[in-house]
Amino acid sequence: MLTAKGAATRDRIVAAAAAEIRERGISAVKLDDIGRRSRTGKSQLFHYFPDGKEQLLLAVAEREAEQVLEDQEPHLGQLTSWDAWAEWRDAVVEKYRRQGVHCPLGVLITEIGRHTPAAQAVTGRLLAQWQRRLESGIEEMKAAGEIRADVDPARAAAALIAAIQGGVAILMSSGSSTHLEYALDLCLDYLQLSTGGR
Amino acid sequence: MLTAKGAATRDRIVAAAAAEIRERGISAVKLDDIGRRSRTGKSQLFHYFPDGKEQLLLAVAEREAEQVLEDQEPHLGQLTSWDAWAEWRDAVVEKYRRQGVHCPLGVLITEIGRHTPAAQAVTGRLLAQWQRRLESGIEEMKAAGEIRADVDPARAAAALIAAIQGGVAILMSSGSSTHLEYALDLCLDYLQLSTGGR
Repeated sequence: MLTAKGAATRDRIVAAAAAEIRERGISAVKLDDIGRRSRTGKSQLFHYFPDGKEQLLLAVAEREAEQVLEDQEPHLGQLTSWDAWAEWRDAVVEKYRRQGVHCPLGVLITEIGRHTPAAQAVTGRLLAQWQRRLESGIEEMKAAGEIRADVDPARAAAALIAAIQGGVAILMSSGSSTHLEYALDLCLDYLQLSTGGR
Repeated sequence: MLTAKGAATRDRIVAAAAAEIRERGISAVKLDDIGRRSRTGKSQLFHYFPDGKEQLLLAVAEREAEQVLEDQEPHLGQLTSWDAWAEWRDAVVEKYRRQGVHCPLGVLITEIGRHTPAAQAVTGRLLAQWQRRLESGIEEMKAAGEIRADVDPARAAAALIAAIQGGVAILMSSGSSTHLEYALDLCLDYLQLSTGGR
C-alpha cells in the first residue's frame, strides 16, 4: 500500500507519462522526460515502477481506460430517463467523433501488446465496468416500467458494448460516425419499443 | 485486362501466397516459396505484381475479404425468412468462434498498414458489400410484411455491421463469443418486434 503522499507522486508520474505520450507519440517517450515533467528523479521512478517503461505504460493505459468512462459522465452514472439515455448517446458519439482516428488507449494497448495478458486485463476491466453501468441503467428503467419485461439487462448491456466497439472501430477506419450512431440508435430503439410480441 | 489463362495464373499466385501466409506467418513468407508453390517463376510473379510483395499482400487481403462473405453463404444471399436469418446468425457465430484470435484478414491489414488508403479500401469495400446484402435481406422481409414499416433497412444493416465488428473484436480479445451473440440477437429481436409504438 502507498501512503497518500506516495500515491500522489505515483499519480503525478503517470499523468506526466500520459501527457508526454500524447504530445510526442509513444515511441519518442523517454523516462528522463517523464521524470523532468513530474519533478521526480530516476530512483523515484524506479521505486514506483520497478519494471520500468513497460509497467509505466500499463499504468498509463489504466488511467486512459478510466478516462473513457469519465468522459461519459455524468450521463453514464444516471441513466434513469430516456432523456438521460439520449444525452449519454450524444456524449459517446461526440467523444469518439472528436477523438477521430487517434485512440490514446488503443495506442498504448498496441504498444504493450494487444494479446498480452496485461493489456487484455486493462481492456477487459474497462468493458466490464462500462457494461455494468449500462446494465444498471437498463435495470432502473425496467424497474420504473420504462423498459418491457422481456428485456434481459445483462444481455442488452453486452450488446450495447459490442455495438459501441464496432461503431468506434469503423469510425477509426472510415472517419465517419454513422455506424456508431445507427448502432446506438438501434439498441436504444430496441429498449424503447413497447411490446415484446412477435 | 488479363486473358483467362493470365487470370488463372494470377489466382494461383494469390492462392499460394495466402496458403504460405497461413502456414508460416506473414513475416516468414518469401516470394521464392510463393513461386515454387504456384509453379511460377520470378519474372511471372513480377509480371502480375510489378510492385512486389506489397501488391501481392493486397491481392491476398482482397481474397480473404471475399472469403469472409463466402463463409456466410448460402445464408447471406437469401435472407428471406426468419429461419434463414437464424441460420445466418449461427453461421457467423460459428465462423468467428472457429477462427478465434487469428483473423487472416486482420493480419494482412496490419502488415499493409491499417491506416493506409489501400488497406482501408479493402476493409471499406468488404463492409459495404456485407452491409448491402443485409440491407437486401431486411428489404425483402419488409416487403413480405415480416418487418414493421418503421424499420429503415440501410440504418439497421449498418447497425448490424457495427454489432458484428464489435462482437468479433471482443471475441478476438476475450476468446468468448457472448458479446457477438448478444449483439446479433438484439438486432434480430429488434427486427422481429411487432410494433414500433413507444
